[in-house]
Amino acid sequence: MLDEKILAVLRRSAEGHVSSEELCKLAGISRAAIWKHIEKLRQEGYEIEASPHLGYRLIAVPDRLIPSEVKWALNTKIIGKEILSYKKVDSTNDVAYKLAEKGMKEGCVIFAEEQERGKGRHGRNWLSPPHTGIYLSFILRPEIAPNEIARITLLAAVCVAKAIRGATGLSAMIKWPNDIIVNGRKICGILTEMKAEQDRVDFLIVGIGVNVGTNERSLPKGASSIRVELRRAGRTMTHPSRLEIARRILEEVERHYIRLNKSGFKAIMDDWKHLSSMPGSRIKVAMQTRSLEGIVHDIDENGALIVRLDSGILEAVSSGDIIMVR
Amino acid sequence: MLDEKILAVLRRSAEGHVSSEELCKLAGISRAAIWKHIEKLRQEGYEIEASPHLGYRLIAVPDRLIPSEVKWALNTKIIGKEILSYKKVDSTNDVAYKLAEKGMKEGCVIFAEEQERGKGRHGRNWLSPPHTGIYLSFILRPEIAPNEIARITLLAAVCVAKAIRGATGLSAMIKWPNDIIVNGRKICGILTEMKAEQDRVDFLIVGIGVNVGTNERSLPKGASSIRVELRRAGRTMTHPSRLEIARRILEEVERHYIRLNKSGFKAIMDDWKHLSSMPGSRIKVAMQTRSLEGIVHDIDENGALIVRLDSGILEAVSSGDIIMVR
Repeated sequence: MLDEKILAVLRRSAEGHVSSEELCKLAGISRAAIWKHIEKLRQEGYEIEASPHLGYRLIAVPDRLIPSEVKWALNTKIIGKEILSYKKVDSTNDVAYKLAEKGMKEGCVIFAEEQERGKGRHGRNWLSPPHTGIYLSFILRPEIAPNEIARITLLAAVCVAKAIRGATGLSAMIKWPNDIIVNGRKICGILTEMKAEQDRVDFLIVGIGVNVGTNERSLPKGASSIRVELRRAGRTMTHPSRLEIARRILEEVERHYIRLNKSGFKAIMDDWKHLSSMPGSRIKVAMQTRSLEGIVHDIDENGALIVRLDSGILEAVSSGDIIMVR
Repeated sequence: MLDEKILAVLRRSAEGHVSSEELCKLAGISRAAIWKHIEKLRQEGYEIEASPHLGYRLIAVPDRLIPSEVKWALNTKIIGKEILSYKKVDSTNDVAYKLAEKGMKEGCVIFAEEQERGKGRHGRNWLSPPHTGIYLSFILRPEIAPNEIARITLLAAVCVAKAIRGATGLSAMIKWPNDIIVNGRKICGILTEMKAEQDRVDFLIVGIGVNVGTNERSLPKGASSIRVELRRAGRTMTHPSRLEIARRILEEVERHYIRLNKSGFKAIMDDWKHLSSMPGSRIKVAMQTRSLEGIVHDIDENGALIVRLDSGILEAVSSGDIIMVR
């Protein structure tokens, strides 16, 4: 708590210095105690300049997804009101799911620096090396039916694409249903899971994995990271801030979630279409028992992909793996 | 294990006696040990006659939903292959859900003699006094999408209605989506819960609560029990066997589940329509935010109720509480 208090004071005076007298007074502790706290913060990665006459000055904060840093300047009321950060978990979705089962409120966000068994769709895994990605899951408790869950996945995709665009300038696009791609390479996956009755969702867990600082060599085939794509684009910002991207994701999710509840899915659908590279593209869909090929026509009001087969027939696809056909 | 072995021998000779020599030989233990086991079985509710010259004879088994009794003469391969019986649980659905999360196989059945927090739809409770009802939940892992889950609820309703008809002769009817009624009074509720991704069900828990021997005084308003309905009908069988009904439910579920996977939902839908009192009836539907009134027209291929409004428009209802209008 004292650390956070000291940080808050330093932050507010980010332009100048804060004298140790002032810090002592505000925190109600001695100079020596202040020094100890400053040392602890430095060990956590905060760069704090100490000048004998002027006092302390905050130079840089660590790019760590810890509650105090994520919450700093986070402009949300629901999403991220409660944040739990872990060094290592099996899967942030599993942690969030268990918390939700115990009654954890909507908007709680779980971060992990590393996932040992990061989850992808259909039991696949999501490679989650330490400190290079954003691995987060949040709990939602919308009053929807199970067949409307795809709406939330598409909403999340819209939010992540917007957040990455806003924070990095990369033209992140959506690949149905739940991938975010840059230049055709996957940099983010989204996994939505739920507990539900027949006609009512109890809770949803939305898991988002973004490859941020991952090296090219550490990436699986077809995947990329924000860092790799920034380099490819010849951009000068080569160390994208996970904090900045994570905050933007949470803010976008809150904004769109409120919009969905107020005004329905239509506006989200429109955003999705703008951010998707798919309409008009030729695709193959591999489904459980069969596959089909056609041109992407649209998405429907439940988030299913509408494909125009070569026969001219329109078919709604609500499950499957997409291969883009050139 | 020895108890079950002894029981099996007694059962096979249900017409006559089994000498204690024979039992000793088969079980590989002494006469005194046999006597101890027989005493234990008697304490569990088995009526076993002992005659000095003829040996032992099984007269009656207790109507308890324990694995050895349920499995005895149970004609299934999947449903009930694993059975776990509890004296008292919060909710059999919760127990089954937790087991499924840990990987328990499809077909595992949980019984409880009593539920402290038996669950109904939408967070309601299901009164579950000890020893008078069947409180069971089973795990399914069908390869379906979340929006197809209503099919399983309707399937379960068909199975329970058939099982009660078969075991008691009462004309059990289905009230959409998940009640079984006799003479307009509810004797059974079904609660289906699932863990799912957007497009794939991980597992389903189907919970079934049947009021079997419950007294009229102990029943909530609008509810009844098999025993009460048998009395009303002036039938001589006034102590319906929970074991018999439970076994029939499991057998029907297995039969219809295999049928669903092989031949699709059409045949189940037809059964449902035959067993439902609803088509042609005037109903009110109370939904989350609004209500509607009309005549039940049909159910659709996803298990939604099709209602013809007074305007003539057909509306599919997939969620809500039904009130029959006279």
